[in-house]
Amino acid sequence: MRQVNAYAAFESKGSLKPFQYQLPELSPEQVDIRVLYCGICHSDLSMVNNEWRTSQFPLVPGHEIVGEVVAVGSGVKNLQVGNKVGLGWFSASCMHCHTCMDGDHHLCGSAEQTIIGRHGGFADYVRAHWSWAITLPEGIDLAKAGPLLCGGITVFYPIVASEVSPVDKVGVIGIGGLGHLAIKFLKHWGCEVVAFTTSADKNEQIKAMGAHQVINTKDPKSLAAVKGQLKFILNTTNVNLDWRLYLNCLTTKGKLHHVGAVLEPMPIQAMTLVGGEKSIGGSPLGSPATTQTMLEFCMRHQIYPTVEEFPLAKVNEALAHLEAGKARYRIVLRVAE
Amino acid sequence: MRQVNAYAAFESKGSLKPFQYQLPELSPEQVDIRVLYCGICHSDLSMVNNEWRTSQFPLVPGHEIVGEVVAVGSGVKNLQVGNKVGLGWFSASCMHCHTCMDGDHHLCGSAEQTIIGRHGGFADYVRAHWSWAITLPEGIDLAKAGPLLCGGITVFYPIVASEVSPVDKVGVIGIGGLGHLAIKFLKHWGCEVVAFTTSADKNEQIKAMGAHQVINTKDPKSLAAVKGQLKFILNTTNVNLDWRLYLNCLTTKGKLHHVGAVLEPMPIQAMTLVGGEKSIGGSPLGSPATTQTMLEFCMRHQIYPTVEEFPLAKVNEALAHLEAGKARYRIVLRVAE
Repeated sequence: MRQVNAYAAFESKGSLKPFQYQLPELSPEQVDIRVLYCGICHSDLSMVNNEWRTSQFPLVPGHEIVGEVVAVGSGVKNLQVGNKVGLGWFSASCMHCHTCMDGDHHLCGSAEQTIIGRHGGFADYVRAHWSWAITLPEGIDLAKAGPLLCGGITVFYPIVASEVSPVDKVGVIGIGGLGHLAIKFLKHWGCEVVAFTTSADKNEQIKAMGAHQVINTKDPKSLAAVKGQLKFILNTTNVNLDWRLYLNCLTTKGKLHHVGAVLEPMPIQAMTLVGGEKSIGGSPLGSPATTQTMLEFCMRHQIYPTVEEFPLAKVNEALAHLEAGKARYRIVLRVAE
Repeated sequence: MRQVNAYAAFESKGSLKPFQYQLPELSPEQVDIRVLYCGICHSDLSMVNNEWRTSQFPLVPGHEIVGEVVAVGSGVKNLQVGNKVGLGWFSASCMHCHTCMDGDHHLCGSAEQTIIGRHGGFADYVRAHWSWAITLPEGIDLAKAGPLLCGGITVFYPIVASEVSPVDKVGVIGIGGLGHLAIKFLKHWGCEVVAFTTSADKNEQIKAMGAHQVINTKDPKSLAAVKGQLKFILNTTNVNLDWRLYLNCLTTKGKLHHVGAVLEPMPIQAMTLVGGEKSIGGSPLGSPATTQTMLEFCMRHQIYPTVEEFPLAKVNEALAHLEAGKARYRIVLRVAE
């Protein structure tokens, strides 16, 4: 039994308040993590606001966790007490289904999600199956690594899975928590990078992150500048845009890839796909192996999110800052002093 | 100057009547083909009926041509008078744009289409750029090869381009002219093949073509039998179906591929793609190189369309048969006796 001191929402849209709960005895394949830092993702806010109708209260958000292993189950072979690890959106997979055995633990039909039906990382401790407690590379900046575990892998994985090539010209829609990391990844991937944003005031910052071209999409005509040029466009927003405009920016054989939870149906013209041999895809997060690969890529190129730090005690202030659209570009909570 | 004796529609939805026209002097990169057989594709009917608003009258349909080269331009290096060739939807590409230089002549922005703004194969002669006059393998059945040049490559190309593997379980929607060829290709590709059809009376024929399972989609619940099982679904219809049902039949990382001209926008839920890492794509025909590859595959496995033959003089009867949905499964016109 371990007592956990957390912050929880007690009702939909409620502010977070201190909350204690007990973790039962550790099972053989689990580890306990003392939380050092925890990023705030937009989906923490969606869960607090019960936007997806999957929230259970009290709800402890937090799934961009950086911490130290403090206990390992008897069957854990790859981790020891004292190891620094990261934990993201998933906290367990079944490990034996065809999908898991194929290395796609993030697509496992019975994967456990860190803040759905269990408690997350706005807390001094959090528990996970060993597979999702990702070993952090030596020397990584612990205060900035958290957002890589969810926001980072969400945009890194499709670059790998869609086989984006360094010779491609590519685009990123929405330059927020996810999009700004996509820009940094794609710049170091060797690509020519175009950013699509509605915030003209971000232009210089976005270029400093590595974008070669910034297109202000408040004027839909501005998209004509890259018509037929992009091999890959990553949509990080959850807004139902005029997809025809973006499909027209693709080269033949180009792909529009969604990682944002666009809730309304997207009206897609089949002939837009057929004529230029284009495709539309999507993906959720990424596998543990690809997350490890991403962390090594980040270390090699010193890629980190641009973060603003708040102490855990100011979590409500931090959430309000995010909800107001003011985060530049990712918020991290400092949990342990 | 060469006089051509053809059959043309003189107005939208008009019946076809004899029509003569003159071909100017052959240019250096062109060849003239004496037509032996010509398949009838549903898009010939769409063009006669001006469904896509691109028809110019008088309109000579016919783009599934099998014939013999009777004249070659001074710059043609790969063909000689007497060669048997096939000609499909495209009759020329620019040959020098990036897309052509990349081998994707079917995606060339200035590709010439055999029956748009020029005359097709319901005629004794037809002209083409050498690149699209595909050399037919020795011994191929000339009376049945025509439909491979359009219907065939339309469904063969996406199997190649989507990297369908022989270990995949796959589906084909719509078992008509295109779909029945897809079933035959995929069976010989080594796949486990599921046919989706609304025509229960075709069941035994479809199984004889190589389908392992036939699903009657008049009952939408029947799709549950293959939920989460198909890596690749090829849609050959132009009807706006309930795509969610088919996306649910895909495995994780599965692809729904359109070759049918669905005209209304398809309402697609982003989360259906994101959750299972699925995609939706499309393609038009295929390149000359892939067409050649297809013909070799057809020879090795003796794959031909199932055809009904009409003499060219009965072209209106043949078109009415097709329009009534009675073709089993592709119609070929015998042009030269």
